[in-house]
Amino acid sequence: MSAIPSLPTAKSIQVDTRGALILDEESPETRDSRGIYLPNYVEPVSHIAVDIGGSLAKVVYFTRSPEPPNSPSIAATRGSTTPPDDISPGKLTPPTPSSPSHRPNNLSRVNGALTPAILDSASTSNVISGLPPSLDTSFRDTLLRRVSVQHLPGGSLNFERYETDRIDECVEFLQHLIERSAHINGVPIEEMRKSVKIMATGGGAHRFYELFSDQLHVEVRREDEMECLIEGLKFISLIPDEVYYFSDELIYSVSHTPAVPFKVPEVLKVQNGVNGVYERPSPDPPKYAVTFEQNPTPQLPCLLVNIGSGVSIIRVDEDGSFERVSGTSLGGGTLWGLLSLLTSATSFDEMLSLSEKGDNATVDMLVGDIYGQDYTRMGLKSTMIASSFGKVFKKDGKKVQPSAEDISKSLLYAVSNNIGQIAYMNAEKYNLDRIYFGGCFIRGHAATVGTLSYAIRFWSKGTKRALFLRHEGFLGAIGAWIKNIGEERPEDR
Amino acid sequence: MSAIPSLPTAKSIQVDTRGALILDEESPETRDSRGIYLPNYVEPVSHIAVDIGGSLAKVVYFTRSPEPPNSPSIAATRGSTTPPDDISPGKLTPPTPSSPSHRPNNLSRVNGALTPAILDSASTSNVISGLPPSLDTSFRDTLLRRVSVQHLPGGSLNFERYETDRIDECVEFLQHLIERSAHINGVPIEEMRKSVKIMATGGGAHRFYELFSDQLHVEVRREDEMECLIEGLKFISLIPDEVYYFSDELIYSVSHTPAVPFKVPEVLKVQNGVNGVYERPSPDPPKYAVTFEQNPTPQLPCLLVNIGSGVSIIRVDEDGSFERVSGTSLGGGTLWGLLSLLTSATSFDEMLSLSEKGDNATVDMLVGDIYGQDYTRMGLKSTMIASSFGKVFKKDGKKVQPSAEDISKSLLYAVSNNIGQIAYMNAEKYNLDRIYFGGCFIRGHAATVGTLSYAIRFWSKGTKRALFLRHEGFLGAIGAWIKNIGEERPEDR
Repeated sequence: MSAIPSLPTAKSIQVDTRGALILDEESPETRDSRGIYLPNYVEPVSHIAVDIGGSLAKVVYFTRSPEPPNSPSIAATRGSTTPPDDISPGKLTPPTPSSPSHRPNNLSRVNGALTPAILDSASTSNVISGLPPSLDTSFRDTLLRRVSVQHLPGGSLNFERYETDRIDECVEFLQHLIERSAHINGVPIEEMRKSVKIMATGGGAHRFYELFSDQLHVEVRREDEMECLIEGLKFISLIPDEVYYFSDELIYSVSHTPAVPFKVPEVLKVQNGVNGVYERPSPDPPKYAVTFEQNPTPQLPCLLVNIGSGVSIIRVDEDGSFERVSGTSLGGGTLWGLLSLLTSATSFDEMLSLSEKGDNATVDMLVGDIYGQDYTRMGLKSTMIASSFGKVFKKDGKKVQPSAEDISKSLLYAVSNNIGQIAYMNAEKYNLDRIYFGGCFIRGHAATVGTLSYAIRFWSKGTKRALFLRHEGFLGAIGAWIKNIGEERPEDR
Repeated sequence: MSAIPSLPTAKSIQVDTRGALILDEESPETRDSRGIYLPNYVEPVSHIAVDIGGSLAKVVYFTRSPEPPNSPSIAATRGSTTPPDDISPGKLTPPTPSSPSHRPNNLSRVNGALTPAILDSASTSNVISGLPPSLDTSFRDTLLRRVSVQHLPGGSLNFERYETDRIDECVEFLQHLIERSAHINGVPIEEMRKSVKIMATGGGAHRFYELFSDQLHVEVRREDEMECLIEGLKFISLIPDEVYYFSDELIYSVSHTPAVPFKVPEVLKVQNGVNGVYERPSPDPPKYAVTFEQNPTPQLPCLLVNIGSGVSIIRVDEDGSFERVSGTSLGGGTLWGLLSLLTSATSFDEMLSLSEKGDNATVDMLVGDIYGQDYTRMGLKSTMIASSFGKVFKKDGKKVQPSAEDISKSLLYAVSNNIGQIAYMNAEKYNLDRIYFGGCFIRGHAATVGTLSYAIRFWSKGTKRALFLRHEGFLGAIGAWIKNIGEERPEDR
């Protein structure tokens, strides 16, 4: 841990985000891993960021491409669920860009290529000859000077997810990404490797440091997890349509069970098809009343609640300095772990869709179950959950066996409510009104987002707002990617 | 709810606690239901208090007796686990006081009898003739005046527990208690009923009001739950040896798993026999470093955390006024419910003893599992739980099936830690140093008490103390019992 840098000072982010665009979603699985096109950005040195958490390893890297490429394929995010033997050495020959249908080989997800430090003369002359004659001379000169050391701007940020248990697949993917980039750029692999830096963060950065440096033969830098989370938040919250929040009406409708008397607004029924089943939020067309921040404003100070296997709660000051002020061990890993023991679900998304069909009132003891009415004096509504799973236990051995759906909903509520409550108390303590929720636990899932939003609204009496991010799970990786950009000087290469 | 009284004003408690004595424990089951002998107390009107929660109904009543009676029998607290048909009408004939061995008939638990409003002349004359001639005249006169309306002081407070699901057994017990008291006092049952008041509190007081008044033919008063909790705390914390807390060394040893490198002090090994298995705390002889408050000091202001099926967190000011400031649905019911789904345990004590043999490190993801070391900069020790149940989930469907022992320990830790954390944040918010934990969840269980204490110690950096009560589950019932004492005037009868 000796290599840990000091607290980050407020610094301008070195990435040109003008015209940034979030690419289309191919499937719910790629919801949070859509590419972000950065038409004005030039990457002098390729930073591949890896954020290795307790359950998932997140990868972020930039590839240049003339125009907005496709979003990551479905394979991109379910890649690591295909059995390892699926990625036999025989399949490692890079698919040509003209064969994007090369599925389910999880290597075919690679869009564009990394930037080599030195462009071969060929591509440089291509660039120059490709310039329109009408182009303003001074700009042409600037451009030529740029090209002499770099290349035309534009490219996109790519996002990948792997299970930490299958970190080898992640290494394999990066290996191929580097090889393929050398191939496409027509530079020797050694040259390519020199221009690539792995920025490793998350707990796994320490456990797997050797693995990455030994296998990839590139420089691996370790970055502090919390610092990266904050850097990532500072960057991603500048991207239009990245930040979103639920309307009060939506919060209410999503965070209350069907058992609770509440008339689902027609608009919701229409937009969600099956009543009570909510699509993940998306701005095009907007699914029910989700608001996306189209013109992001400065987001600090704020509270960042990062929900992975466990939960970290971080206070971020206006100058970007931060402190991990709290946390809880009741996080995504708890929901995953308990539900994998209690249901037959084999994936987290499966558990979430189970919960959408459930009614927690069959397992949760509500205030009404105890009082037979509201406990008005204490402000406890009869529909409020008094005891999660409180209806299940029977001392006489006669056990109730609730449905997997009801169990899933009850546990999702329990974990989300609890995180929301602890988050609120910290926001109150540090007098922060903006509460960002990040981490792979959220997955843009309506019930999760709704419950967290409801908890913040309930405890803060509507004075504080829960904010969410479409790339919620990649804050650390984005931060690691961006952290040292702009520090490289020519002599670095 | 219209009958709810206004906030209680600070009032002197009307019960004479001089010489109060907690009676012996017969078994772990009666640990929290030991009688309290009050040698100087006289009860003009019999108050039978019933606190009906989501899972358990707690009963408190006072019976006069010449000298300290036996503790409640084992049957007293396992009464409601004996099948209902065990209490057939045929068995309702009251056992004579000389047959205390009449087991397991759960009616034989009755010690002494309730006080009737009017004493028969016989017992009065017995009292007078029994006075020593040497007795100071003025005191003799006072005494005679007292006897003329009441009787000799002394008696004990009795504690019973029933499952709310089996409330009928509770009603039956009270019915017999009243009948038997009439029998022993030699007064007509109608006379006896006039001198008895049922003080009902807890959520069930509303649901079961009619049941009690219809079945028992006595006046039933409803009392506000939170008020009763506070009154109960104010009273019970005056009883010597009632309040206890764990030493720091003990907190550490109990709240860390065997997996954590920690040398159990020899003294603990000796005192606990099997290493790692902890007896419930008891002062005679003191089991490891439990401290009992022998000379209780004023306990307000404080935070009261009442852990039943759910959790209520109540701020109590110096003048006894209070506010329910927070709570959580992750309480005893959650632990009971989930463990009854995840293990074969059929009683809460069974679950607790399972947890004593477990190692949570097999199911919990520790900081060390993620970082391979401490996360020093953030002050996270490698042995700290990062994600409860975080090790169980396997996306590829290969599920780990941990032992019931490990699951129980992990869940006990998760729930206790979480309650401790939320309790601490409220204690900090309201600047309170004393945090009392009450409610039937605790059961004097070393791992529970230790984990709650550890959480308070961890979060408050040792500045705040977790305090526990031997009659932890009876605060509400005690408060209901005491609440209207002293209000009766002669014309009441």
